[in-house]
Amino acid sequence: MSGEPLTVGVDFGTLSGRAVVVRVRDGAELGTAVYEYPHGVVDRALPATGEPLPPDWALQVPSDYLGVLRSAVPAAIRDAGADPADVIGLGTDFTACTMLPTTVDGTPLCELPEFAAEPHAYVKLWRHHAAQPQADRINALARYRDEKWLPRYGGLISSEWEFAKALQILEEAPHVYAATAHWVELADWIVWQLTGHYVRNACTAGYKGILQDGQYPGADFLRELNPGFGDFVTGKLDRPLGRLGDRAGPLTAEAAAWTGLPAGIAVAVGNVDAHVTAPAAQAVGPGRMVAIMGTSTCHVLNSRELREVPGMCGVVDGGIVPGLWGYEAGQSGVGDIFGWFVEHGVPPRYHEEARRAGVSLHEHLTSLAAEQGIGEHGLVALDWHSGNRSVLVDHELSGVVLGQTLATRAEDTYRALLEATAFGTRVIIESFQHAGVPVTELVVAGGLVRNAFLMQVYADVVNLPLSVIGSEQGPALGSAIHAAVAAGAYPDITAASRAMGSVRRGVYRPVRENVAAYDRLYAEYRELHDHFGRGGNDVLHRLAARRREAVSVRKGQS
Amino acid sequence: MSGEPLTVGVDFGTLSGRAVVVRVRDGAELGTAVYEYPHGVVDRALPATGEPLPPDWALQVPSDYLGVLRSAVPAAIRDAGADPADVIGLGTDFTACTMLPTTVDGTPLCELPEFAAEPHAYVKLWRHHAAQPQADRINALARYRDEKWLPRYGGLISSEWEFAKALQILEEAPHVYAATAHWVELADWIVWQLTGHYVRNACTAGYKGILQDGQYPGADFLRELNPGFGDFVTGKLDRPLGRLGDRAGPLTAEAAAWTGLPAGIAVAVGNVDAHVTAPAAQAVGPGRMVAIMGTSTCHVLNSRELREVPGMCGVVDGGIVPGLWGYEAGQSGVGDIFGWFVEHGVPPRYHEEARRAGVSLHEHLTSLAAEQGIGEHGLVALDWHSGNRSVLVDHELSGVVLGQTLATRAEDTYRALLEATAFGTRVIIESFQHAGVPVTELVVAGGLVRNAFLMQVYADVVNLPLSVIGSEQGPALGSAIHAAVAAGAYPDITAASRAMGSVRRGVYRPVRENVAAYDRLYAEYRELHDHFGRGGNDVLHRLAARRREAVSVRKGQS
Repeated sequence: MSGEPLTVGVDFGTLSGRAVVVRVRDGAELGTAVYEYPHGVVDRALPATGEPLPPDWALQVPSDYLGVLRSAVPAAIRDAGADPADVIGLGTDFTACTMLPTTVDGTPLCELPEFAAEPHAYVKLWRHHAAQPQADRINALARYRDEKWLPRYGGLISSEWEFAKALQILEEAPHVYAATAHWVELADWIVWQLTGHYVRNACTAGYKGILQDGQYPGADFLRELNPGFGDFVTGKLDRPLGRLGDRAGPLTAEAAAWTGLPAGIAVAVGNVDAHVTAPAAQAVGPGRMVAIMGTSTCHVLNSRELREVPGMCGVVDGGIVPGLWGYEAGQSGVGDIFGWFVEHGVPPRYHEEARRAGVSLHEHLTSLAAEQGIGEHGLVALDWHSGNRSVLVDHELSGVVLGQTLATRAEDTYRALLEATAFGTRVIIESFQHAGVPVTELVVAGGLVRNAFLMQVYADVVNLPLSVIGSEQGPALGSAIHAAVAAGAYPDITAASRAMGSVRRGVYRPVRENVAAYDRLYAEYRELHDHFGRGGNDVLHRLAARRREAVSVRKGQS
Repeated sequence: MSGEPLTVGVDFGTLSGRAVVVRVRDGAELGTAVYEYPHGVVDRALPATGEPLPPDWALQVPSDYLGVLRSAVPAAIRDAGADPADVIGLGTDFTACTMLPTTVDGTPLCELPEFAAEPHAYVKLWRHHAAQPQADRINALARYRDEKWLPRYGGLISSEWEFAKALQILEEAPHVYAATAHWVELADWIVWQLTGHYVRNACTAGYKGILQDGQYPGADFLRELNPGFGDFVTGKLDRPLGRLGDRAGPLTAEAAAWTGLPAGIAVAVGNVDAHVTAPAAQAVGPGRMVAIMGTSTCHVLNSRELREVPGMCGVVDGGIVPGLWGYEAGQSGVGDIFGWFVEHGVPPRYHEEARRAGVSLHEHLTSLAAEQGIGEHGLVALDWHSGNRSVLVDHELSGVVLGQTLATRAEDTYRALLEATAFGTRVIIESFQHAGVPVTELVVAGGLVRNAFLMQVYADVVNLPLSVIGSEQGPALGSAIHAAVAAGAYPDITAASRAMGSVRRGVYRPVRENVAAYDRLYAEYRELHDHFGRGGNDVLHRLAARRREAVSVRKGQS
């Protein structure tokens, strides 16, 4: 296999980074390696000082990411038995929106001695949720001023995104904010480390940075949020934009030494894990919705049309591939909900049966659930145990189960939860369709594809053919595809995706009787969804408020 | 203790009969014994033939009851170390509505060789639910004709009661119906066996036999149900009535031989287990609601007022004690729901912790739940896992849980279910109060009184002082009290109850802050109760219908 051009894709996840070595000709994955971040997610105490962090904080340590370059990349090359000289390009993807304040040259503030003890100087991981007050004010002001970018985000800017997190620093640690030369997406920071160039990628700039039609929110809007925030965009955020699949720059000698790859090879513009999965699954064409299903689900979809879809996460010009409008939506709890139920709601007998059968408890419950007819459990559930991202964008919602009797068993509730997440996906698909954005196929990636019963439930519930990604490391493969385009091996992402991506099309097809049976259950789901999610009965919000109040009263007493 | 007058109370339950020997002077319980029915509940196949029974059938074998007289009564006397000659009276109570077709002399039809293989010739236990179609027609016709007895039953006649069960025999086994000389409540049949006299007790005649203001439903009503049913009351049901606490007759020589008691002593008019518990708990005065809390809860309450309470089970003149209006209501699932959750919704860790601590899983979950502040679990549940008896009278309803998150643990859901049953009791109490029937105290009997945390939740939720019955065998003690009245040792049930009953008054008192906190949660329960129980969203009925349909489709396929 020597002499054939290769690329390397690196996927930076929440707890680890994965490198994969891919043959440019056909996308064959020749070798892979994973590197766990030594500091993981910093959400309890700052490593430097042991200082406890407030709830909802989630930080990371930037040097951990360089460990992936130093360790996983060379290990993947070894695993492939490849000659590094054959590697023509390197691509990366990152969690988002994960942000870091840096100096002018990209040095993380947390690496300066004077800021080592300052939590705000560290990486704010995507799931740092402590900027909710700032996000609330951004949304209220944007609605009041009728900012025209707001509908591009389904009507809501998330506390996870660039502006809310920056505003939190300004208001809670003004000295850190003042020392911040650049407020950088890690997707771009890692490319900066590899190339010496700071290029903002079109994906995160659009989805997380509120860049629409070439413009960020204006200085007057920012000043109204906080007088000190007026020059945030011009001073700390704005930079030349890189299109996805473009070459951000050549690999520097220093980064070549870290990775063992040849200096000067093409490094692709940065990207986001979910979005880069679309080319890996040969799903960059319009109407193909990619669902990356794991603990949560992220949906990405291209379209020729620009539409305002209520409750989507965002729509960005070239957000997935240049030349198309890229849409994003999401379900905040999917595999997490199944995992919670399996851990906290299943009696010992099932554990023993699964152990005896040598299967996981998920597999055991799934096979019991699969024996039932549709509706036989008599249940319907709302999949809001971790809140609702799309289309309600409401993290104060919580789970609901209706229909339990003394005859209800664990597999019944488990199946109802599986079905509830499929209904949640259908609500999202229908929102796109009603807004005039066609969805013709559901392409599934992520760990949950292994559950064939779940996949059939999804096909039947959404009444679309269900395709399954061919790779088990979709994001890393997608990054390797971007690398091939950046290296000039293909004219564009679509062409590279066709050659290097892989998908099994129509693996699961809707069964007509099942579709009809689920239609009736979905009608129940939809009515409950709107009743409890759109103000018919605001009980879930009141329960959440009461929960917080009761906890704080008890803590005050003890 | 020899020479002091004693009575014997016998409580005929669903699976066994219990006899207790009681000192007339002060109600001291001197001895007790239990006899398990050899045939238990016959709900799968007829013992005589092995013929399988349809679903919802529940029969018993009448000779099992005589075993209680032959075995448990002498054993209780022995256990008390008592001289049978000191026994001056015998009282009994029975499950209801439990019915038997007999010949003119009271011989059960099932004991005639020609009917031994005929399911309809056996005892129909209270929870025989196969007469629902007949009950539906009785209710529809009564509503259509605006029968004035209907509101006395909260607007609905149960499939468990005398008319529906008899009509089922007429329509499914007309030869059995034709051979039936008397259609007898077991509460009266057992007294007939003891005395040789057939006296209908005022309690079951009123609550289960639709006897109101001295009249049963008229012949024209019955003919309209079925032309062959017109003479049901006059031909097979009507008999002289006995007031509660009256002497039905003397113990016959034959029955004296069975029991070892002196022939000729007073035998009290029959009664029902729940109702006879009121005097045992010194709760025969107006406004004292007795809740017998076990797998389900039965509520009985006396009042000077006759009111139509929507959703009650019934109101009967002298239904609990002569001279007062006796009300009955119920919750169809209480301890059953807790038991279901403990068996089917609790992961292994809790089982192990309980085992290590040497406590039951109920106790373990209760102590974990008790550590929380009110509302801290963020949940609210509807306690309809076994349907709803009062006040919705709807067995097609099912359980609902709202508010679960990934942080919800088993003790949270367990507590929410405990609270839900307390909210259900509050709905019943409020229905009485709104209808003008005062409730000033809740007196609790039954197995659940042992859960002190649950008792405090009830006191806080219903905002009433909670008293607890002193005896652990309330119904049998109540029957012994009736026996003392029948024997002339006390002028009436109230006087006998004061001397022989026992109660700890105001053991649990509402805590003001808790009452306020539960008021807010109850408001949520009430809104959901009305939404899902009164047609706001009929989803629970549709889910139940779909469940049946799906099961029958699958059975048809397999």
